[in-house]
Amino acid sequence: MDRQLPTSETTNLMGWFEGRVHHYNIHVFYEDTDFSGIVYHANYLKYFERGRSSFLNLIGVEHAELWDDHNMAFIIRKMEIDYKRAAKVDDRLTIKTYYNRVKGARLFISQDCYRGDELIVSAQCEAACINKDGRPIRASGFLMEKLDGFLES
Amino acid sequence: MDRQLPTSETTNLMGWFEGRVHHYNIHVFYEDTDFSGIVYHANYLKYFERGRSSFLNLIGVEHAELWDDHNMAFIIRKMEIDYKRAAKVDDRLTIKTYYNRVKGARLFISQDCYRGDELIVSAQCEAACINKDGRPIRASGFLMEKLDGFLES
Amino acid sequence: MDRQLPTSETTNLMGWFEGRVHHYNIHVFYEDTDFSGIVYHANYLKYFERGRSSFLNLIGVEHAELWDDHNMAFIIRKMEIDYKRAAKVDDRLTIKTYYNRVKGARLFISQDCYRGDELIVSAQCEAACINKDGRPIRASGFLMEKLDGFLES
Amino acid sequence: MDRQLPTSETTNLMGWFEGRVHHYNIHVFYEDTDFSGIVYHANYLKYFERGRSSFLNLIGVEHAELWDDHNMAFIIRKMEIDYKRAAKVDDRLTIKTYYNRVKGARLFISQDCYRGDELIVSAQCEAACINKDGRPIRASGFLMEKLDGFLES
Repeated sequence: MDRQLPTSETTNLMGWFEGRVHHYNIHVFYEDTDFSGIVYHANYLKYFERGRSSFLNLIGVEHAELWDDHNMAFIIRKMEIDYKRAAKVDDRLTIKTYYNRVKGARLFISQDCYRGDELIVSAQCEAACINKDGRPIRASGFLMEKLDGFLES
Repeated sequence: MDRQLPTSETTNLMGWFEGRVHHYNIHVFYEDTDFSGIVYHANYLKYFERGRSSFLNLIGVEHAELWDDHNMAFIIRKMEIDYKRAAKVDDRLTIKTYYNRVKGARLFISQDCYRGDELIVSAQCEAACINKDGRPIRASGFLMEKLDGFLES
Repeated sequence: MDRQLPTSETTNLMGWFEGRVHHYNIHVFYEDTDFSGIVYHANYLKYFERGRSSFLNLIGVEHAELWDDHNMAFIIRKMEIDYKRAAKVDDRLTIKTYYNRVKGARLFISQDCYRGDELIVSAQCEAACINKDGRPIRASGFLMEKLDGFLES
Repeated sequence: MDRQLPTSETTNLMGWFEGRVHHYNIHVFYEDTDFSGIVYHANYLKYFERGRSSFLNLIGVEHAELWDDHNMAFIIRKMEIDYKRAAKVDDRLTIKTYYNRVKGARLFISQDCYRGDELIVSAQCEAACINKDGRPIRASGFLMEKLDGFLES
């Protein structure tokens, strides 16, 4: 992990790392809320996916490249989501993403959504690598190499 | 147009025709609203697409079949949307869809969203047929045959 | 449960009951899919919410009425989602919803998404009643009365 | 306009100004695409709204504050959208937003979505200020003061 990666000082669209934990900022827009005044529960899954994808983007993995060059995409197999507090329009949230383990085709990922120090939502996610036919495939060497140093030790 | 099509008496998931006008019912759910209490403006474009797709489904055109067998999908080229009133959660809306003209790759479609007799949103839509590479292609004979009798005379 | 409720013969926008199990049909539209060709995982949470809301609509509970007259809305506290298969554009899916138990402010609900006989996604959901200030409140007598006969015995 | 505003060097979640033109970066995620491989057309309306809201956030206007303190929200009255090219997953887009004119309750806004130098989608938007009852209200002095120097001269 001696690569040169953006830090919080140069935060950009792809977020930043603190150690192995990826951070990604989210601003809550009109589109994210519902009539009860808070963020609609399904939208946190979009936030978490932005976190997981930005993590990958930042270590040099792009979905378009995986799809075109490696015949690979991700699907979600399981999600456990724990909604602890509600977020509102114009809130600034941070998604923290931990890629913990890879086992065959499966990736185990933990994610938290914070507003400042308050934990808003936490999630456990099991993803899997699939090919264009939708069949599970072992995580490619390309991906494993990129994830090196970020997984749980 | 002597085909046997569902009528309002047997309304199903695909809506129904009254003359050449397709009708499709929408129920407004949590997901459709925003914190200001009304349907989020972008979601009417989803409603209109459900209307256009259901129109096609009902005359025997399926997107999956177009894609797999005819190497064809639709893109939107232009939309003009006029928001006249606001809809709220649990409202029952009806999308009325008119496929007016087909010219080369382009389809010209008018759509209205009603709540009972009240016009909520109206839209003019220009769609185009594309192939899997994203290039515009002439509407296929298959599609034109299905649309026969529904276009503006 | 001697009320007169729609059956599968008169299926409408609100779905129908078979015993205590609510059924709600979903058509997969463009909006629901992503570039990998399948339904985007977060959208199943919208499908499940349509199932839960339609269940309530069908037994005479409307969100707008709960909000305006009973100062009450629902939030999601926990979701466990198990993605077993992938659905594609133009698939016809059925959401089966079981309101199992109510305990204070909390509702425990099981849901399955089927394509024909194939189980696509299943979910365990814990919802809670809140007031307009976002505080948990005991499920109202109004709601409990409506749910009578549908809960797990 | 002698206020100290973020520049492109310190780009953050709220975007930045170049003259009176607001710039906001968007990364295209899974959630934004559909099975035809490109960004789903309705999602550009979300992008444009992020641009309009971030413009306001950056000049010190927050929706939550408008709602709570000024009894005011925005609705969209008209949109004209011209889709010129297609965007794909992992594309980096920039939304350029021009607040052109305010006339009574109505705001006239132009927006473009670029990928590098390529114009992807352009839009003309007419928004209106409403109160919590949904009635149009004159743009408040608070808002007009903030917009000073950014409108078309």
